[in-house]
Amino acid sequence: MISDILAIAGWIGLVAFAVSGALVASRKQMDIIAFVFFGTATAIGGGTMRDLVLDLPVFWVKDTTALIVAAIASALTFFVAHLPQSRLRLLLWLDALGMAVFCVVGAAAGLDHGAVVAVTCGVITAVVGGFIRDMMGAEEAAIMRGEIYASAAFLGALIFVLLHGVVARDIAVIAGTLAAFALRGAALAFGWRLPVYRAKRGRSREEIGL
Amino acid sequence: MISDILAIAGWIGLVAFAVSGALVASRKQMDIIAFVFFGTATAIGGGTMRDLVLDLPVFWVKDTTALIVAAIASALTFFVAHLPQSRLRLLLWLDALGMAVFCVVGAAAGLDHGAVVAVTCGVITAVVGGFIRDMMGAEEAAIMRGEIYASAAFLGALIFVLLHGVVARDIAVIAGTLAAFALRGAALAFGWRLPVYRAKRGRSREEIGL
Amino acid sequence: MISDILAIAGWIGLVAFAVSGALVASRKQMDIIAFVFFGTATAIGGGTMRDLVLDLPVFWVKDTTALIVAAIASALTFFVAHLPQSRLRLLLWLDALGMAVFCVVGAAAGLDHGAVVAVTCGVITAVVGGFIRDMMGAEEAAIMRGEIYASAAFLGALIFVLLHGVVARDIAVIAGTLAAFALRGAALAFGWRLPVYRAKRGRSREEIGL
Repeated sequence: MISDILAIAGWIGLVAFAVSGALVASRKQMDIIAFVFFGTATAIGGGTMRDLVLDLPVFWVKDTTALIVAAIASALTFFVAHLPQSRLRLLLWLDALGMAVFCVVGAAAGLDHGAVVAVTCGVITAVVGGFIRDMMGAEEAAIMRGEIYASAAFLGALIFVLLHGVVARDIAVIAGTLAAFALRGAALAFGWRLPVYRAKRGRSREEIGL
Repeated sequence: MISDILAIAGWIGLVAFAVSGALVASRKQMDIIAFVFFGTATAIGGGTMRDLVLDLPVFWVKDTTALIVAAIASALTFFVAHLPQSRLRLLLWLDALGMAVFCVVGAAAGLDHGAVVAVTCGVITAVVGGFIRDMMGAEEAAIMRGEIYASAAFLGALIFVLLHGVVARDIAVIAGTLAAFALRGAALAFGWRLPVYRAKRGRSREEIGL
Repeated sequence: MISDILAIAGWIGLVAFAVSGALVASRKQMDIIAFVFFGTATAIGGGTMRDLVLDLPVFWVKDTTALIVAAIASALTFFVAHLPQSRLRLLLWLDALGMAVFCVVGAAAGLDHGAVVAVTCGVITAVVGGFIRDMMGAEEAAIMRGEIYASAAFLGALIFVLLHGVVARDIAVIAGTLAAFALRGAALAFGWRLPVYRAKRGRSREEIGL
């Protein structure tokens, strides 16, 4: 049923983020429980934070299906992680996919509180899981590399919120997701960056005597 | 109106932390959306955690003004971050200002639960935003450098809680804020430290064969 | 009274984690307030996250005794941290003890929501405090070293949840705790690891041209 497109997006993002988290465990040569731990934390982190700030019941406490699906996807990754030619490249594209659907899913959850909260919740849902993953894996988060990342989540959430109520909801969902994925994908594929701050990099505390 | 001094303190802290977060983005030569993301997360992080543990509605969901002000302050920083002679020095002093007002603002929010929870909420509100900023920016947090930081937040919150009900609330707010800022400022300006633990630094796991 | 065994486990875990957090402050030669800050955050971090996701009142807001006990244990550590021959070894074993009791304490809190949520809450309660400690202390978390850690918490929580309702609750508590502690202890003492993912370590982004 086409009205379930938001639910479908949620499942796609959950599995994409779970596999991306499990791939971090694979890059660090961990055991299968660590795969499940990394993958599940990545998959549910953003939505958990969104539910906490919106004072909603945390989605995986209310219905454990999401938890079980994320755990299974992470566990399966243990057995197939050797197949892709580049696990890091796959990880980054799955992360882009998860981010693109979660910015819309998160924004939809915050719509009752107005456009500003909705866009903010979209960004939170999209970036928190990947941030937890990158901290746990001691990888430099995309958001810290000065890449287009939060910008893509922001764009996707904004487009969904602006179109919502104007066009059919499914169109708004698809437009927001495609916009976020296209912008992040272009950043990954072509090294696109927004105009950056031009002054020289900051000095360390020692250099300025603090 | 002088009875709004706590609200004024809240706005000062919000803007100070937002600019401090945006300055981290400037030190890493990021784009304007990253400035907004870093600045806003720094500005609202502590208050969000405080509201979650106190089971209060998250302040920026209830009233989005704080979110918009933090975003605007962060975005403006993109255009003026080249002006200060040392962005890091400015960052550290703005951080001190934000910490000093937020330890009192946070303690005030926790007063209904007694003095111990109030002081704890003051420390949480004061340090969590800066900690998120430093983790995102891969900077070593002040709290990790063994400096007077949590101590200053603790002192400010404690003074406010002790004076509250004894003197006029505005006096308690000002006294707590000044105490925290003076102690942190002295640590920044003169390198003050509390007496520290004297034994030699810990060895690594490899050195003790674990 | 033997029916309070879960409460006793909670206190043991609280003190063990508080001392482990304070020992990180000692390894970094910090002041006594930093000991209290690190110790308390480590001790209450996991239970706080568990209460937030279960939408329960945060335990240390409801009853500040836990907060005070954690702060005192952390402060006392300032004066005795020089006594053990290896603070790191002590830290790791106290962390193992805290993890082993908290995985059962956390699982017990989540039982009303079914077995899957209970086990998940056990793992969250067991690992979040130590993860906060290791991030604040810029130490590589056990969970990131590919060691048996989350696996031990998972095993302990699972055994408790499976035995609960089948045998007396106290037996289930003891069995879960002992299983988690034995598995983690074996990992520490003998370097046990689960079978790990075999492919070579991941390459960096530069190596694959991203």
